[in-house]
Amino acid sequence: MTVTILFAAPSEDWAEYEAPLTDALDATGLDYRIGPDLAPETVDYIVYAPSSKVQDFKPFTRLKAVLNLWAGVEKVIGNPTLTVPLTRMVDEEGLTQGMVEWVTGHVLRHHLGMDRHIVNPEGVWEHEAPPLAHDRPVTILGMGALGKACARTLRHLGFPVTGWSRSEKRIANVKCVHGEAGLAQALRGAQIVVLLLPETPGTQNILNAQSLALLHRGAVVINPGRGPLIDDAALLAALDSGQVSHATLDVFRVEPLPGDDPYWTHPRVTVTPHVASETRPGSASRVIAENIRRSENGMPLLHLVDPLAGY
Amino acid sequence: MTVTILFAAPSEDWAEYEAPLTDALDATGLDYRIGPDLAPETVDYIVYAPSSKVQDFKPFTRLKAVLNLWAGVEKVIGNPTLTVPLTRMVDEEGLTQGMVEWVTGHVLRHHLGMDRHIVNPEGVWEHEAPPLAHDRPVTILGMGALGKACARTLRHLGFPVTGWSRSEKRIANVKCVHGEAGLAQALRGAQIVVLLLPETPGTQNILNAQSLALLHRGAVVINPGRGPLIDDAALLAALDSGQVSHATLDVFRVEPLPGDDPYWTHPRVTVTPHVASETRPGSASRVIAENIRRSENGMPLLHLVDPLAGY
Repeated sequence: MTVTILFAAPSEDWAEYEAPLTDALDATGLDYRIGPDLAPETVDYIVYAPSSKVQDFKPFTRLKAVLNLWAGVEKVIGNPTLTVPLTRMVDEEGLTQGMVEWVTGHVLRHHLGMDRHIVNPEGVWEHEAPPLAHDRPVTILGMGALGKACARTLRHLGFPVTGWSRSEKRIANVKCVHGEAGLAQALRGAQIVVLLLPETPGTQNILNAQSLALLHRGAVVINPGRGPLIDDAALLAALDSGQVSHATLDVFRVEPLPGDDPYWTHPRVTVTPHVASETRPGSASRVIAENIRRSENGMPLLHLVDPLAGY
Repeated sequence: MTVTILFAAPSEDWAEYEAPLTDALDATGLDYRIGPDLAPETVDYIVYAPSSKVQDFKPFTRLKAVLNLWAGVEKVIGNPTLTVPLTRMVDEEGLTQGMVEWVTGHVLRHHLGMDRHIVNPEGVWEHEAPPLAHDRPVTILGMGALGKACARTLRHLGFPVTGWSRSEKRIANVKCVHGEAGLAQALRGAQIVVLLLPETPGTQNILNAQSLALLHRGAVVINPGRGPLIDDAALLAALDSGQVSHATLDVFRVEPLPGDDPYWTHPRVTVTPHVASETRPGSASRVIAENIRRSENGMPLLHLVDPLAGY
């Protein structure tokens, strides 16, 4: 029987995904049809972006699963009409690799103090070498697929890495701490903090006045995770007091970041426009097709969202 | 018999090196004395900086070797009074690690297009993700200890790396080319070029109008090697024409870079003040002490300079 797949995402995404999804689905050998406009009662799977027009899943009476195109599911997980399994995107090749590049690049940028050379209108020649990476402790909050991959590359470069997660993890050469008590341990003395946590009720404002005070004075905050992980007022105060010397932020409570947001004009803040990690159509399509193939063959779905954990 | 070692480098270097050199020499078990002022005819070894007052080696009648504190020997190798073996600094821990961090950081900075986010006074939110590293070919000219170490880390990050050297080399996962013919092959289509060659008559102006024209249009040039590797007028012309989109330069024909040098004010040039790689006193002192220990035990010196090759 034909597997029917609705592509429920903005139309510019369909333009980008039609060819790679078709290629990836062809490779599974399944008899399928896919499109952006299909009668709800015929649909087996939805390839989904939370910004899609589809917000009521009730009409999809034979739906087997919703396959989210992106890593973040916070805008769909609470949808009360969603009663089938939800998967999120774990695109090693695109998402993870892109994140590793962005995080490593910005950690090195701050470690090396590049900004004072990039912007140097007075032509100041000040010969001062930074410490080596092994004298620059980095802490990553969030040890999922992205956090782990970043930790591995930062370790390869010589940085001492501490990783914090909700539950206990073990990762070679990374000091892993977890839970409430572990959080203070992870933040105390950190010179660079990278936020790679999912957004859940438990992680909101995890960087606040109290936790920012634990960092090494003059620490750098890098957030490619989720905007609400940071208490923005507390971060701005820490930047003004010098407790935090710079923040590089890729994600925000409201995106695009509004023109009057103080982050735009703060001299010690760098705004990047949510580019740290992108699902790439080719590799993401292979992940989606593989999950549909698994489901049709009675195998468990990969990257299933746990509604209780929130990711 | 007591081994006598002259420390012939500016006095601020002695302040920095006295303790680590003493520690490292103590660890060899040799009977030695070391200092910045010793009678020439008593000296067995000179720990040397080319900027030292010692420019005439003739009075050092029992000299066994000159141990250069830095990697570059171009200012001492041609000294006609130098008739004993000369070694250069190969400080894996300090020089190599520092270089890997600086090169990786600036390659990622250009790869990710960071500058347009670091300097963004209009608050432009333009969501455009860069390609992944595996779509960004990087070429390294110079496959010595520094070039090899940088190639390894850039490969770890996913960049396709081509390495060029004078003589043939084989390095896992790096496309190695060599000689005159290999140079054009290495440069053609490269999007980022890193210069890590020694300065020799054969490498001067290796980046010139002709070789710059081979690069991918809009390529980036990164020079942490030696200033004279680049024909400065040709690079400025290539920057103006758009053939090269940015140059990040750490070394120059004259240092500090004079205030009126056009590199300071060119909008697509970043000047860093010769900080890419620094000998670190602790690790460098261990390299020096080990070479003296080897020599005193009749073993061949490490990191011997070949006067014909020039490094």
